[in-house]
Amino acid sequence: MESQHRVVILGGGFGGLYAAKALKHAPVQVTLLDRRNFHLFQPLLYQVATGSLSPGEIASPLRAVFRHQRNTQVLLGEAVDLDAERRRVILADGEIEYDTLLVATGSGDYYFGHDDWKRSAPGLKSIEEATAIRGKFLYAFEAAEREHDPAKRREWLTFVMVGGGPTGVELAGALGEIAHDTLRRDFRSIHPEEAVILLLEGGPRILPSYSPDLSAKAEASLIRLGVTPRTNAMAIGIDDAGVTIKTASGTERIRARTVVWSAGVRASSFGEVLAHRAGAELDRGGRVTVNSDLSLPAHPEILVIGDLARFEQDGKPLAGVAQVAMQGGGYAAKLIVSRLHGRTIPPFRYFDKGSLAVIGRAAAVAEIGKLRISGLLAWFIWVFVHLMYLVEFSNRVLVFVHWGFLYLTWDRGARLITGPDPAFEAQPEESPVAKL
Amino acid sequence: MESQHRVVILGGGFGGLYAAKALKHAPVQVTLLDRRNFHLFQPLLYQVATGSLSPGEIASPLRAVFRHQRNTQVLLGEAVDLDAERRRVILADGEIEYDTLLVATGSGDYYFGHDDWKRSAPGLKSIEEATAIRGKFLYAFEAAEREHDPAKRREWLTFVMVGGGPTGVELAGALGEIAHDTLRRDFRSIHPEEAVILLLEGGPRILPSYSPDLSAKAEASLIRLGVTPRTNAMAIGIDDAGVTIKTASGTERIRARTVVWSAGVRASSFGEVLAHRAGAELDRGGRVTVNSDLSLPAHPEILVIGDLARFEQDGKPLAGVAQVAMQGGGYAAKLIVSRLHGRTIPPFRYFDKGSLAVIGRAAAVAEIGKLRISGLLAWFIWVFVHLMYLVEFSNRVLVFVHWGFLYLTWDRGARLITGPDPAFEAQPEESPVAKL
Repeated sequence: MESQHRVVILGGGFGGLYAAKALKHAPVQVTLLDRRNFHLFQPLLYQVATGSLSPGEIASPLRAVFRHQRNTQVLLGEAVDLDAERRRVILADGEIEYDTLLVATGSGDYYFGHDDWKRSAPGLKSIEEATAIRGKFLYAFEAAEREHDPAKRREWLTFVMVGGGPTGVELAGALGEIAHDTLRRDFRSIHPEEAVILLLEGGPRILPSYSPDLSAKAEASLIRLGVTPRTNAMAIGIDDAGVTIKTASGTERIRARTVVWSAGVRASSFGEVLAHRAGAELDRGGRVTVNSDLSLPAHPEILVIGDLARFEQDGKPLAGVAQVAMQGGGYAAKLIVSRLHGRTIPPFRYFDKGSLAVIGRAAAVAEIGKLRISGLLAWFIWVFVHLMYLVEFSNRVLVFVHWGFLYLTWDRGARLITGPDPAFEAQPEESPVAKL
Repeated sequence: MESQHRVVILGGGFGGLYAAKALKHAPVQVTLLDRRNFHLFQPLLYQVATGSLSPGEIASPLRAVFRHQRNTQVLLGEAVDLDAERRRVILADGEIEYDTLLVATGSGDYYFGHDDWKRSAPGLKSIEEATAIRGKFLYAFEAAEREHDPAKRREWLTFVMVGGGPTGVELAGALGEIAHDTLRRDFRSIHPEEAVILLLEGGPRILPSYSPDLSAKAEASLIRLGVTPRTNAMAIGIDDAGVTIKTASGTERIRARTVVWSAGVRASSFGEVLAHRAGAELDRGGRVTVNSDLSLPAHPEILVIGDLARFEQDGKPLAGVAQVAMQGGGYAAKLIVSRLHGRTIPPFRYFDKGSLAVIGRAAAVAEIGKLRISGLLAWFIWVFVHLMYLVEFSNRVLVFVHWGFLYLTWDRGARLITGPDPAFEAQPEESPVAKL
């Protein structure tokens, strides 16, 4: 074993997970390092934030995923530095040697330089943030129920999503459903359906990465769910009492006690380590420019995939979506094996399977090639795609029958290290590894 | 409505929940106040701590439970004081008037005066503690996997439960299963089945409230699961590096990185409020001595039930178990209605339906009247009893089919305010209300 080619993968998100999986039968020794002990199915994180799913239902313990893959070792830890010459990843408390390094540390929330906004407006990148947002949402209704001053009650019942991309749309849609359906009969003093749910988008339309007609359809669906989309409304200030926006007609203050950030992400800070230690070039978003085979120009033995990589295809950089990371992971695995056999393979090419965004129950928008679908059919496609993914990695769909069954099976579904664990408290919030 | 008799219930645990439920058709106006927005099915909390269940699966949002009970209002809040003369509960930010006050604030962990032990050895009373313990358990295996020093590795793989009552037994049994079955193939450097799981009991046998032969059977079952029960072993010191115990042969130091407290509870501190404001008498455990109808001697309009009440029956105080609280809640509701009609009812009498403790999969002990059962049959009884309870309150057993179904139904299963929510951070850890 010791003489085998050693592949070290940083990050157990979509890219790292797929790469490790794809190396299952390769004559290599794989070490998958992540700061968390689980793979998170991030596309459903908004459902945790809105109370539909429990954290355990969208997270798979990495050890369980790789239990039967004997050439793969999972390690819980954080990469803090790199010695590219001696080919070692430096951890907080040790080192790991590699022959090939695959960096898949993803991206995190980015507040455009206003890091103080984070305290008032959490993003939606981790389990902890999702449960914090869930708590904020639900607490707001509770506080409104007890508040007698109509103006203050209004502030509790105003919810603002900053950023009209898929995350903001999904979150706003789900919150609209909560207010109008789930909680409708739960309160005595307030009417949850009077909640104001604002979706702020700085640009001229929501879902800017989709076609204009799908943006319009998504907007109509959101309005039906009680959400108010506001375009050309750029957040210029966020604090605990609300959001200040800049519109065509000037600035405006929106008083709200609950604000969620869904506007910007930035590549993981391990990109900077690669810049300093391996001569990588970063773009404005902190992404690492890679060769056509996803390797670093100065270090062909270092590959970068997913949100952290800047890869131009047909003149445009690829987006930071799960599909890009997964395909990058698959390509990287193939490249590693080919190199071992002295073969070459064609450059990486992303195959766009389409985009999907869901807007509440039974409504979604999808772009698959030239096809544009909205409504129930798009929603069914969305459910199917996500169920397939979950089934592939954890069998959860079948396992979650109910606790009795769960108890009788030999697997435990919720093996997560999360929350205020003393072992993690000392670590910085923004970490180079596995910003999943 | 305003002229109706106002019942205020403090605490949404077993006692408060059953009392409110039993008042469904009574001509009263019920306010149920709890610090949390959910009822917690505490007997299964150890399964959250061991990763079998997600928090959402054993917690029901109180608002959902009382959605259709029109005479009942749920409020999120904390009772900090009492004005017994003016019949008002004082909240941190307001007051609630009552005609009858039902105090069901339960009990919390008690470290026999060593509150500094809490930091190293969390108890198992809340969702947050359960997920913290889960994190500690799982992190210990991860740390052991990365540790090369055999002695230090040993410390990571030593788990100590302090207290051999039902909670300690259930936790130790489940951990034994995790180490021997669930995690068996998950690691590359360590053998999880080499974990040392110690169950410390100060007295001469574990499960002291059960009959001696059931204690012996439970001990045998635990040993089969890889747990080492140690009786006559009293913890006299706990810190981050381990536990010091006093045994017949002197003191002994057990080096362990993971210690859980399951030894003592103490009645909620709202008992002291009742002592100062309503002349209540407290026993050594902080419990409030009540009349034969569960009322306070000096204030018949204040009733105390569950873990907070000291009620002697046949010369012995009733135990702090769910059944006592539930029956107390039912009795209190009946008493309130009877008084409204000017009728009297016989004193409260607890009917002992039996005791149950589970020791891992397919093993349990049960005492039902003179009947003593152990093994698989006892386990089936345990599963049945717990399933019935969960079904009654939330339909979870049926709802939890899987996330797809959950998504299609109109209920959201995980509506909990939990974790590091800013709205709760400022509150003291030990709170008078709803130490569920």
